[in-house]
Amino acid sequence: MTHSVAILGASGYTGAELVRLIATHPALRIAALTADRKAGQAMADVFPHLRHLDLPRLTTVEEVDFAALDLVFCALPHGLSQALVRDLPRDLRVVDLGADFRLRDPAAYEKWYGLPHAAPELQPEAVYGLTEFYREEIRAARLVAGTGCNAATVQLALRPLIEAGLIDLDDIVCDLKNGISGAGRGLKENMLFAERSEDVAGYGQGGRHRHLGEFDQEFSALAGREVRILFTPHLVPVNRGILASCHLKGDALAIHAALEARYAAEPFVIVLPYGQLPAMGHVQGSNFCHIGIIGDRVGGRALVVSTLDNLCKGSSGQALQNANLMLGLDETAGLMLAPVFP
Amino acid sequence: MTHSVAILGASGYTGAELVRLIATHPALRIAALTADRKAGQAMADVFPHLRHLDLPRLTTVEEVDFAALDLVFCALPHGLSQALVRDLPRDLRVVDLGADFRLRDPAAYEKWYGLPHAAPELQPEAVYGLTEFYREEIRAARLVAGTGCNAATVQLALRPLIEAGLIDLDDIVCDLKNGISGAGRGLKENMLFAERSEDVAGYGQGGRHRHLGEFDQEFSALAGREVRILFTPHLVPVNRGILASCHLKGDALAIHAALEARYAAEPFVIVLPYGQLPAMGHVQGSNFCHIGIIGDRVGGRALVVSTLDNLCKGSSGQALQNANLMLGLDETAGLMLAPVFP
Amino acid sequence: MTHSVAILGASGYTGAELVRLIATHPALRIAALTADRKAGQAMADVFPHLRHLDLPRLTTVEEVDFAALDLVFCALPHGLSQALVRDLPRDLRVVDLGADFRLRDPAAYEKWYGLPHAAPELQPEAVYGLTEFYREEIRAARLVAGTGCNAATVQLALRPLIEAGLIDLDDIVCDLKNGISGAGRGLKENMLFAERSEDVAGYGQGGRHRHLGEFDQEFSALAGREVRILFTPHLVPVNRGILASCHLKGDALAIHAALEARYAAEPFVIVLPYGQLPAMGHVQGSNFCHIGIIGDRVGGRALVVSTLDNLCKGSSGQALQNANLMLGLDETAGLMLAPVFP
Amino acid sequence: MTHSVAILGASGYTGAELVRLIATHPALRIAALTADRKAGQAMADVFPHLRHLDLPRLTTVEEVDFAALDLVFCALPHGLSQALVRDLPRDLRVVDLGADFRLRDPAAYEKWYGLPHAAPELQPEAVYGLTEFYREEIRAARLVAGTGCNAATVQLALRPLIEAGLIDLDDIVCDLKNGISGAGRGLKENMLFAERSEDVAGYGQGGRHRHLGEFDQEFSALAGREVRILFTPHLVPVNRGILASCHLKGDALAIHAALEARYAAEPFVIVLPYGQLPAMGHVQGSNFCHIGIIGDRVGGRALVVSTLDNLCKGSSGQALQNANLMLGLDETAGLMLAPVFP
Repeated sequence: MTHSVAILGASGYTGAELVRLIATHPALRIAALTADRKAGQAMADVFPHLRHLDLPRLTTVEEVDFAALDLVFCALPHGLSQALVRDLPRDLRVVDLGADFRLRDPAAYEKWYGLPHAAPELQPEAVYGLTEFYREEIRAARLVAGTGCNAATVQLALRPLIEAGLIDLDDIVCDLKNGISGAGRGLKENMLFAERSEDVAGYGQGGRHRHLGEFDQEFSALAGREVRILFTPHLVPVNRGILASCHLKGDALAIHAALEARYAAEPFVIVLPYGQLPAMGHVQGSNFCHIGIIGDRVGGRALVVSTLDNLCKGSSGQALQNANLMLGLDETAGLMLAPVFP
Repeated sequence: MTHSVAILGASGYTGAELVRLIATHPALRIAALTADRKAGQAMADVFPHLRHLDLPRLTTVEEVDFAALDLVFCALPHGLSQALVRDLPRDLRVVDLGADFRLRDPAAYEKWYGLPHAAPELQPEAVYGLTEFYREEIRAARLVAGTGCNAATVQLALRPLIEAGLIDLDDIVCDLKNGISGAGRGLKENMLFAERSEDVAGYGQGGRHRHLGEFDQEFSALAGREVRILFTPHLVPVNRGILASCHLKGDALAIHAALEARYAAEPFVIVLPYGQLPAMGHVQGSNFCHIGIIGDRVGGRALVVSTLDNLCKGSSGQALQNANLMLGLDETAGLMLAPVFP
Repeated sequence: MTHSVAILGASGYTGAELVRLIATHPALRIAALTADRKAGQAMADVFPHLRHLDLPRLTTVEEVDFAALDLVFCALPHGLSQALVRDLPRDLRVVDLGADFRLRDPAAYEKWYGLPHAAPELQPEAVYGLTEFYREEIRAARLVAGTGCNAATVQLALRPLIEAGLIDLDDIVCDLKNGISGAGRGLKENMLFAERSEDVAGYGQGGRHRHLGEFDQEFSALAGREVRILFTPHLVPVNRGILASCHLKGDALAIHAALEARYAAEPFVIVLPYGQLPAMGHVQGSNFCHIGIIGDRVGGRALVVSTLDNLCKGSSGQALQNANLMLGLDETAGLMLAPVFP
Repeated sequence: MTHSVAILGASGYTGAELVRLIATHPALRIAALTADRKAGQAMADVFPHLRHLDLPRLTTVEEVDFAALDLVFCALPHGLSQALVRDLPRDLRVVDLGADFRLRDPAAYEKWYGLPHAAPELQPEAVYGLTEFYREEIRAARLVAGTGCNAATVQLALRPLIEAGLIDLDDIVCDLKNGISGAGRGLKENMLFAERSEDVAGYGQGGRHRHLGEFDQEFSALAGREVRILFTPHLVPVNRGILASCHLKGDALAIHAALEARYAAEPFVIVLPYGQLPAMGHVQGSNFCHIGIIGDRVGGRALVVSTLDNLCKGSSGQALQNANLMLGLDETAGLMLAPVFP
């Protein structure tokens, strides 16, 4: 049986990535693609790499026949999904890839995103989309809020350790290296090729990055106390990928054992043998997350490195994984593509 | 029904690419992987991006049980396949990804590769593996010789034009831009990151590149006269991809019409609307070839630009496409992956 | 003796490159820097790599005291210099880095740039800034029009050959590989890192690129007849550099001899030994142009490859070289910086 | 007055960088260049970007007339300088760019480099080459041991803080992003373009990197107690540059004030305004080090980010700065080149 889906905001990178993944999905059919400013254009004009596919033309949201859909993916810029989802049919499944429903507390949303929440009445039903930790809730959900890409990378590394009490909660330093596609297709001077090539630079430093809202919410809930991690992302001249180096206080071998046990049955999270560290280039184009652990000559220290493709496992792949669950499909459908290397 | 295959030379990039493609193939099973110097290692140690797959350990060629196989892919360095294939069971299907069986005339092989042909008695049965032009022969073949990656890129652009007599055969200038993975995983100073990044430079110039042997053979046969193209490849700092800019004398509109007609029914070759030119970044990770055509203010001139992924459509994807035909499978099985962009 | 100069349009890449070069110049002093939208900012905020220099704050053009200047560099977007230069003191030396005064015929300017010439009365005194071929005129000039960066790269390769009648004027195919900084710092979707990294694609194809106006003007004048070259630039993922592969009909050895003789005494143009081809990475950050020549197994053909740094020899370096001449200084002052490799 | 120098090991990247810098130096003359395996070749064949310079041909070390020299730069692979320097004239000034004389304790050398020290009798006279902290000793030295490039980047950030007691010595986490040229020109599979492009991966993790020997020595001496930092370098796909993110416990404003005061008079170390962070791309090709400091919403935390060009300030630029001091020249001679951006 085939399910009809729409992608709202299909002219951005996460929209295109959804199309790429769904292209070989056995049970999903793309019924509509929207893009406000590019409505009317063929998808092949906006993303020529999808030229081989028979896709609907881009339309406005208003033109979509939502009644004919089984599920909607919202890949809109932050701040636009709340009002839009509020106006959708109440029984239509929604996977939101943006930040609009990630924070359970509307006040926290306003604090981190600078806007009042436009649909606070919907927030209680939104399930946080970190599949490996909210699987059953997602299966039953109507509205799933995709996590931030950085938030996914770091949480996959740290949640089992916080849950098990294996690390010092007051000394969590996460230093991230981020591929450029995470900034989206919007026009910013500092995202020009000539500015980013041959460069590495931090951004959103000093505890100001919006994904901290997610870390605060999730880690504090897990720990039963306030947790505030140190989080410092850096732009690296790579198209796709996030590599999070988490500098922790804890027993590295115990940490390795805990992560290995936690993810043994997970299809997409792979824990490397102790002492091996993952590489960003080994997960690109895929829904896999690789995690490596090593100790240090300084005792009681562990380095946990987690890497995934920000557009796939960090966003569109996660969204599809959740959609599969919501629709009662095999969770891995359309997602077992091997990474592309080199 | 599942067919058992082996990949000989699985520690190189084309070997890894075959594994990537076969990973989601519905009817092939990898029974053996060989790599002389790395025999005994796990594939995940040689190519960590394949870590999620359950693959046989690398072995020597001698350890392979060829009797249990339906087809062998040879992804060996040039010069090693001839003797090896000669010693395989006579009824075992073979797809060779190297240069050893590409040239029908053993003297031409010796001229371009500097070695006498080690298995000239097998050469007559070898079918040239350019699928779109040798499909029926490949279907019936036991031994298929994969084309050079440059040879595929340029022939897809030019063969229909030579056949139709649409271009001046004495004025074919092909200027190629080549991704670095085409040089393989061997250690050469000029393939180090610091040498290739931020650089563009020609190589194999002056009519000395070995793929000229294929062009001479194929184009002369097509034209019924000697054809010698000008062929100038350049290394560009990109992992995957070949973009061939073919500067031709002919009528651009007629050329466009001929190419569009020729490839209308082909699953992997896409001719763009007249005046649009393709981009290397729009085919990476896929088996597609995009071709664009434009005229010039100088009358009687046409620019035909052809681009594909050297590791996929230029090598391993082509090999799998041919293997599908040889095994009576759907030609596109395992190959409909969309390009990865960005 | 120190000469005072201003750079109008200092917030673009060519403006910053001028500052870089003048920083170690023994006889120039930067008295003013302008940038309309960024007026009021410190140069270190706009270009942090120049942070170590003691530079004037960016101002509007109106704030500049032109009477105190010996020379002005105009690094403005195309179309803005004509009116501005018209209003400058009539005895102030001007080096324009844009296209506004490159074409001697105002009708040609209008044809290629889509705007009527705003200062046609100044055009007759503008000298075309290709130093190696207009040196004496530049020395005496008040107004010098810098060449296009592509125009410089190709003309350095071809002018001596056209002058000497060594090549077929009806078969000049120039295939260029262009670094991304040539597109400037303006915001365009196709100049984002994620769009250009891992990609090669043509642009301005089909005889539509504006630098053709310069080629038409210069080559036709040289040849005494109309010359129309084929010119196909491609964007490559490199910050700086242009590599022009010129596919010619002519005797390669004679071509090599002619180029070697022509440039023997030139400080910045280096002809490689016959058969060696240059690399973009070997001129970056410098004012040098490397030219290589090789024949082909197809007789009567020559490949002439010319490479330079588009921001330096292709623009700001050329401008400084010309300014040196206009001010009676050593032509090479501030310009002997070795290329940065790797 | 001109001083004659030789560069031993001129076929590596740091050798070439020395030549680049000395090319515009007013008082140094390159009298000899050596390269064992490439002896006999012209420097232009080994490094075509230096083609415009009139340089001596590469020779063996044995062919060098050391009596005619004022100073020797040793840019040899680790482990080769000790014996070589031992056999040089006792009054010849030596700047060693390798690790052979960095560690004052020969036992520490053996521990980190796996070889017994071949010239322990020379070690006492070797001065550690971190110019900003050993300037007077360097001025008087005969033998200066250049620092590791990582060691320079991190020490410039941390020394003043350790000296002033501003940070918790038991919680120093340094996460580095390293350009690829730091690995040198040797042939290693993991340094191939196709392996490093589009990738980020850690190396030398777990407290095993050899530069830890330098940190242990210097920081412990400064603090008067044992100091063991956490040090985790990562390879990023950039040619040149190191960016060290130092995660510290201390008062960010006090840290900023201390660094600003310490470097106010230094020509090459620039402390950014509080809250601004540096970018690797803003120091490339130059001898500058940029340092930025920011606090965090988590109180008592500071991020200090230090960046420099590993081949220049991290190695050859530092070496030249030291040579200038040793020869009684202006310390900045040949080193005021502005960074190349973009």
